[in-house]
Amino acid sequence: MSAQYTIGLDYGTNSVRALLVDTADGREIATAIWGYEHGHAGVVLSHDPNLARQHPADYLKGAEVTIVQALAEASRSVSGFQPEQVVGIGVDTTGSTPLPVDADGQPLAFRDEFSGNPAALAWLWKDHTSFAEAAEITALGLEIRPQIMAKIGGIYSSEWFYSKILHCLRTAPEVFDAAYSWIELADFVPAALTGTLSPNKFTAGICASGHKAMFNEAWGGYPDKEFLSRLDPKLGALRDHLPKRVRAVDSSVGGLTAEWAKKTGLPAGIPVAVGAFDAHLGAIGAGIKPGTLVKIIGTSTCDITVKRDSEKLADVPGLCGIVDGSVLPGYFGLEAGQSAVGDIFEWFVGYVKPEGGSHEALTAGAAKLQPGESGLLALDWNNGNRTILVDQRLTGLLVGQTLYTTPAEIYRALIEATAYGALTIINRFEEYGVTIDQIVNCGGIAEKSPLTMQIYADVTGRPMKISRSAQTPALGAAIAAAVVAGAHPDFASAQKAMTGLKTDIFEPTPGPHAVYRELYSIYRTLHDAFGTKAWQGNLYDVMKKLIDIRNRVRK
Amino acid sequence: MSAQYTIGLDYGTNSVRALLVDTADGREIATAIWGYEHGHAGVVLSHDPNLARQHPADYLKGAEVTIVQALAEASRSVSGFQPEQVVGIGVDTTGSTPLPVDADGQPLAFRDEFSGNPAALAWLWKDHTSFAEAAEITALGLEIRPQIMAKIGGIYSSEWFYSKILHCLRTAPEVFDAAYSWIELADFVPAALTGTLSPNKFTAGICASGHKAMFNEAWGGYPDKEFLSRLDPKLGALRDHLPKRVRAVDSSVGGLTAEWAKKTGLPAGIPVAVGAFDAHLGAIGAGIKPGTLVKIIGTSTCDITVKRDSEKLADVPGLCGIVDGSVLPGYFGLEAGQSAVGDIFEWFVGYVKPEGGSHEALTAGAAKLQPGESGLLALDWNNGNRTILVDQRLTGLLVGQTLYTTPAEIYRALIEATAYGALTIINRFEEYGVTIDQIVNCGGIAEKSPLTMQIYADVTGRPMKISRSAQTPALGAAIAAAVVAGAHPDFASAQKAMTGLKTDIFEPTPGPHAVYRELYSIYRTLHDAFGTKAWQGNLYDVMKKLIDIRNRVRK
Repeated sequence: MSAQYTIGLDYGTNSVRALLVDTADGREIATAIWGYEHGHAGVVLSHDPNLARQHPADYLKGAEVTIVQALAEASRSVSGFQPEQVVGIGVDTTGSTPLPVDADGQPLAFRDEFSGNPAALAWLWKDHTSFAEAAEITALGLEIRPQIMAKIGGIYSSEWFYSKILHCLRTAPEVFDAAYSWIELADFVPAALTGTLSPNKFTAGICASGHKAMFNEAWGGYPDKEFLSRLDPKLGALRDHLPKRVRAVDSSVGGLTAEWAKKTGLPAGIPVAVGAFDAHLGAIGAGIKPGTLVKIIGTSTCDITVKRDSEKLADVPGLCGIVDGSVLPGYFGLEAGQSAVGDIFEWFVGYVKPEGGSHEALTAGAAKLQPGESGLLALDWNNGNRTILVDQRLTGLLVGQTLYTTPAEIYRALIEATAYGALTIINRFEEYGVTIDQIVNCGGIAEKSPLTMQIYADVTGRPMKISRSAQTPALGAAIAAAVVAGAHPDFASAQKAMTGLKTDIFEPTPGPHAVYRELYSIYRTLHDAFGTKAWQGNLYDVMKKLIDIRNRVRK
Repeated sequence: MSAQYTIGLDYGTNSVRALLVDTADGREIATAIWGYEHGHAGVVLSHDPNLARQHPADYLKGAEVTIVQALAEASRSVSGFQPEQVVGIGVDTTGSTPLPVDADGQPLAFRDEFSGNPAALAWLWKDHTSFAEAAEITALGLEIRPQIMAKIGGIYSSEWFYSKILHCLRTAPEVFDAAYSWIELADFVPAALTGTLSPNKFTAGICASGHKAMFNEAWGGYPDKEFLSRLDPKLGALRDHLPKRVRAVDSSVGGLTAEWAKKTGLPAGIPVAVGAFDAHLGAIGAGIKPGTLVKIIGTSTCDITVKRDSEKLADVPGLCGIVDGSVLPGYFGLEAGQSAVGDIFEWFVGYVKPEGGSHEALTAGAAKLQPGESGLLALDWNNGNRTILVDQRLTGLLVGQTLYTTPAEIYRALIEATAYGALTIINRFEEYGVTIDQIVNCGGIAEKSPLTMQIYADVTGRPMKISRSAQTPALGAAIAAAVVAGAHPDFASAQKAMTGLKTDIFEPTPGPHAVYRELYSIYRTLHDAFGTKAWQGNLYDVMKKLIDIRNRVRK
């Protein structure tokens, strides 16, 4: 039998990637990346720093351009390669990134009447314009649907589906009224590729529906009409137009259309797997299983673990969600995350722009510092806090600056802040009985920043392993494609064949870990003081403790 | 009678300036500036960010170079000018900047054996190596000498005389043991110019002695030997070598020596006034009188007012000091201050170095912003807090950062932070019955940054006036010279003739002031939470309030 390949399409915040993979061993044959054309690095911004949108035209053009490029590269690098050997496509995306569509499932953004109207675009995951609606949904949910709220950690986020739709309803009613429904980017792309955008053919993924739209078979799918109508009768009415078919990633949504086959050079009819979020398919690409925490660390993180759905599982406050089958069929998917990691480093490099301050230069400077040496401590909240506070109305904080504080010191403090955020998530899992035996990291930051990985090891006191693949979400999408194409009988078999770890492991070092235990307790004080209503106390010692640690380390 | 001139010598943190003034009208005939040669911009640093020293050789060379240059410039600009028309010299300096001297009054730093020993240098005002000793002096003082501590606001600073000497005693005993005594820079220069360095001829100023060395006639001069000996017997023994003669700036310390006359071209024998701190003589140069707060705003600030010493005056907690005659003879001098203002802006421009971020460019960007628009709030504590917390173990804080926060926004937040610090001082004065009717600003920041002055007006809700002279401390020193030379009978007469205000006044604007009242209450919450032991509470609303204000302002 000749080799079989699948393609994973990975839709990130700024670009889309196509990864062509050998289903036998996960070997990555070809990669192509294309940056979105609209907005600032693919993100449409406005004077409101909460607004972040994308143009769906970028999603379609991105699929075409990257698939064509990946096939061309595969032809060059594998002797005898034929596009006909590609047996399936998988798709992963950011999310919740919903977009309004008409009764044919076509994005409203494609209509002339809505060109220039940001409400008709896709509402990117990190769009936080809907914070008031999120608070409203949370309040009502806690009041009348506590069982639903318990599964999403007790707080509905401004990053999520209904918050964004409700904000659109109130601030851009012309768009809301013109929309037949709203669909997630993760579902839009597979449907577009297979010609199944129209509602009667459409399939949604359990990943997005479960984690962001509170879909759960336990209460009959999407939240009931009465609940949604209390938020707004029009939102209640929208429920009738939400997807009827919701599936896990072991299902196919359909076959590639002739039109897309012609555009790309792929065979028509090959299956396209149900789409899922980058983190969830990334977790699969990183070899997720019970006891393993997969951290996908890029602009933000998703922290994913799974637990057999036959076992008892408490609701974990502050998690983004617990959804059966959202990662692997037969397992609860538990999702946590940090609203910004790489984005915080990028803010410092790209907005503050310290002189000579490339990521490389700042990393080199930061690597020369000992833990505590700068006297700085930061909160990693420049984009709010997803887990465990689930509060987008939090912001960054830096404390400990002197008249001599350098950019490298600040950069290291920002890395450390994200490590403290990561530890807070691990602690939260374990506090609620979800044991973490191993941490596997993937994503851009895990790949590119050994310093960050070492700091994570030293802060958490746990080894940091790295996924063998540098493109885990795309690999996970390709694995889903391999399963729906029948190249592997199930995910366990496909993961065993196609995933692995790098041999280099970042081990925690005792001295730095001891200092970081002290610093984390200060972080946790600030975290609780600024982030929770329950905290009562005094911060008189915060700056002094940082100085004490600094003086001790510098000796 | 031909015109009479005096020279004010102004010793700053990075350079010394000579200002040649017409005693009839304060007209500034000539100015010369010379940057100190040692260290980094005149400041000797080490790996310890608390350490800041200066080489006394710079003080002597600076006097010579700048006087010679000023005389040359006067000859060019005033037809018929003769150096013989210069009738006196006044001196102002930073402080507390003590230096160890031998039994002849010569700096130990001039000895080969101590070259390269930073403890033998002058301990610059902003040297904070002595924070532990300051805490120890404060604790002992509060226990056994509460009446002394009450006059300095209840806390003895690490910036001050005995803290530094005690730290030297403990960390560089070879220097302490070799020193006959320690003298302030403000006293060193006049004594050097007049050949009165030796202890039997030496005169100290009440300004430095009163504000930094707790000299007060009420308890017999310097603090008693028992108190000092409890800190260390050697410190008690040092008291016997402290200056015997302490005078206000209406006294002369002696006449210019023949040697200095030859070096500079000035007439030998002209009187040199008792030296004082830059802020105190700056206050005189700005026209200080009861009800007037003079703010000298440079790298740090001093905030000075006076009250007739015949009136009742409560001790004001957190002030740097209340000393009879320290500014004007016959008045209590009340000194407050911020440990860093221009230094904070300079930190951001010079250390963080945002791309394209000159002070001019950042000011232009910051000026385009509305109050509250950035969502940022900072504490102005990068160099500790002098008034009202008197705590050098405080550090900077910035809160409210998003992923889009710009350098101009941060720069404006830093300016605003110093304005909040300024308001906190004004409030403290008034809380204790020292009414402020008018605020006169001077110093580099007041001169160069109209944006800062407008923000100060908008934050405080009070007009900001600017001293006519751009070189107020040097002018004040020249006024003292005019008084000791007999060109004017007293300070009131000299100030009336030689000082004035600029016609442009920065008036508060109601809209911005209303926003700043809200922001100041958040600043005050952070100030008290991080700066005081007494505060108890929760900061859950801080970030959210900043976002609310931001959203309101951006509409």
